[in-house]
Amino acid sequence: MMACPLEQALAVMVSTFHKYSGKEGDKFKLSKAELKELLSRELPAFGTMDEGEFRRLMNDLDHDKDSEVDFKEYACFLACVAMGYNEFFRDAQRPRKK
Amino acid sequence: MMACPLEQALAVMVSTFHKYSGKEGDKFKLSKAELKELLSRELPAFGTMDEGEFRRLMNDLDHDKDSEVDFKEYACFLACVAMGYNEFFRDAQRPRKK
Repeated sequence: MMACPLEQALAVMVSTFHKYSGKEGDKFKLSKAELKELLSRELPAFGTMDEGEFRRLMNDLDHDKDSEVDFKEYACFLACVAMGYNEFFRDAQRPRKK
Repeated sequence: MMACPLEQALAVMVSTFHKYSGKEGDKFKLSKAELKELLSRELPAFGTMDEGEFRRLMNDLDHDKDSEVDFKEYACFLACVAMGYNEFFRDAQRPRKK
């Protein structure tokens, strides 16, 4: 089994996607409703978006414009979210400018 | 605290980067030695690369050619590794073709 936290983290990224992608339509892509459910349950920070914000996010993520979010689009989104967390972490470590 | 596995996974991605990036040179980037240590300890599947393979990986990741891997480059790499895991997962679920 995978014992390293980073490998586990990657496995969580994959299993979370499939937990939702299989519910309707293409089993290997997130529909709009599936993405919404994933965000509200798994990334509560994004679960409070209103309908307009959600539509813009879906539009940003869906690079190939097939109205579904595939794993690559989802992985890029998570990389962006991680970048946001990283900025926060880095800024918290740096001495504050006056 | 963060209770969702996906949020925890993102936090692990960030904290793993900083566990190694602070060791030498730019505290917020991975040097070649830091990347090597991170891979061998945290992603053992990549820890068995020979010197040539490692040099090619470093070269692929280092988009801005500053000889260090920043967080964005690292996050893109992890997204690619996750895509590899996903293909594996998806193929394992699909009925085999004769």
